[in-house]
Amino acid sequence: MQQKSKIFGELSLIEKFKKKETILKEGKIENYLSYIIQGCVVQIINHDGNEICPGFTLENAFFSSYVSFLTREPSQLRIIAIEETFVERIPYDNLQAAYNFSGDHQKNGRIIAEQLYINASRRTISLITKTAEQRYVDLTKKHPDALQRIPLKYIASYLGITPVSLSRIRNKLAKK
Amino acid sequence: MQQKSKIFGELSLIEKFKKKETILKEGKIENYLSYIIQGCVVQIINHDGNEICPGFTLENAFFSSYVSFLTREPSQLRIIAIEETFVERIPYDNLQAAYNFSGDHQKNGRIIAEQLYINASRRTISLITKTAEQRYVDLTKKHPDALQRIPLKYIASYLGITPVSLSRIRNKLAKK
Repeated sequence: MQQKSKIFGELSLIEKFKKKETILKEGKIENYLSYIIQGCVVQIINHDGNEICPGFTLENAFFSSYVSFLTREPSQLRIIAIEETFVERIPYDNLQAAYNFSGDHQKNGRIIAEQLYINASRRTISLITKTAEQRYVDLTKKHPDALQRIPLKYIASYLGITPVSLSRIRNKLAKK
Repeated sequence: MQQKSKIFGELSLIEKFKKKETILKEGKIENYLSYIIQGCVVQIINHDGNEICPGFTLENAFFSSYVSFLTREPSQLRIIAIEETFVERIPYDNLQAAYNFSGDHQKNGRIIAEQLYINASRRTISLITKTAEQRYVDLTKKHPDALQRIPLKYIASYLGITPVSLSRIRNKLAKK
C-alpha cells in the first residue's frame, strides 16, 4: 500500500509493515524519517547475544535510526514493527530537496530533531537519576498501553533492568 | 567582556567565564544556546551525593542544557567552566525571533539540534556496545587533550566507570 501523505505532502509516502517485520536491518543506512500513523516499532541493538532496546515509538511520533539518517553511516540499530504498523515516510533525498526550497521544511526538520533530542535525553537522565520503579511508573503514565503492546523483554531493557526485576516491580505495585 | 558576535550576528553576545565558574545552576531555566570559542565546560547531575557527568564540551562546539532550553523547564543539569572560557551565546528569545525572520536561522537551528542529537546518541550507544577501555581509547583519539584539561572524576563518570577503573585502564594502556 502506497499513497500520498497528508503531512509532508507529495515528497513522502505511506507504507504498511506487517507484525514482526524488520523495517531497518543493522548495518544498513537509514534512508527514511518516519511518522507512525498507527502501530508500534522498537529499536534493538544486538550486544553479546542480547537484544538491548534503547527506544520504542507509538502512534503520532517520529522514528528513525536517526544518527544513520543524518550521518549516512550504517545503522547500529535494528528497527522492527511490533504490530501491523502504518507509517508516513519521507526519504532522505526528498527531505534534503525540501530543505532547499522552503524555510517551513527547515522549521519542521528543526522541530523533529529537537523532539528526538528531548526524548533521548530524558531517557538518559531518568536512567541516571531515577529508580527502576520510578521509571516504570513514569512509563505507565506516559504510555498506559505500552505494556500490553510491547514484549516485556523490550520494556525491561528500555527501563534498564532485567525482565525478572520488571516482574517484581509490577507485582509489588499491583499489591498496593 | 561583551562584544558583538561573528557567528549569530547582532542577536548574540560574547561572554567570558572564569575557571570553575558556574554557568548554569540546576533548577534554573537555560536561556542560552552557547558556542565555545575557547575553553571547556562540563555538565553535571547531582545524584545521591555523587556528581555524574553526562557530557563535556571543548572549543568549536555548541553546548546548552538543551532540554531545558527547548522546553523552558528547570534544568536538571549544572554547567560549569573548567577553564577560563569564552563563549558566544544566543539568548532564547533572540533565537525565536531569528527563526521568524529567516529560513537560514531555521537551518542553523536544525543543524545544531541534529549535531547535539548525534553526540548524545553516540555516547548512549557506546555505553551499551563498547567496553570501558574502548570508550577510553575513542575519547583519547577524538579529544587527545581532554584528559589533561578535564578532572579525571568527570572523565570517568562520562565513560561510565569509577576513577579507580579509569586509572587501571590508563596504567594498562601506558604499559603497552
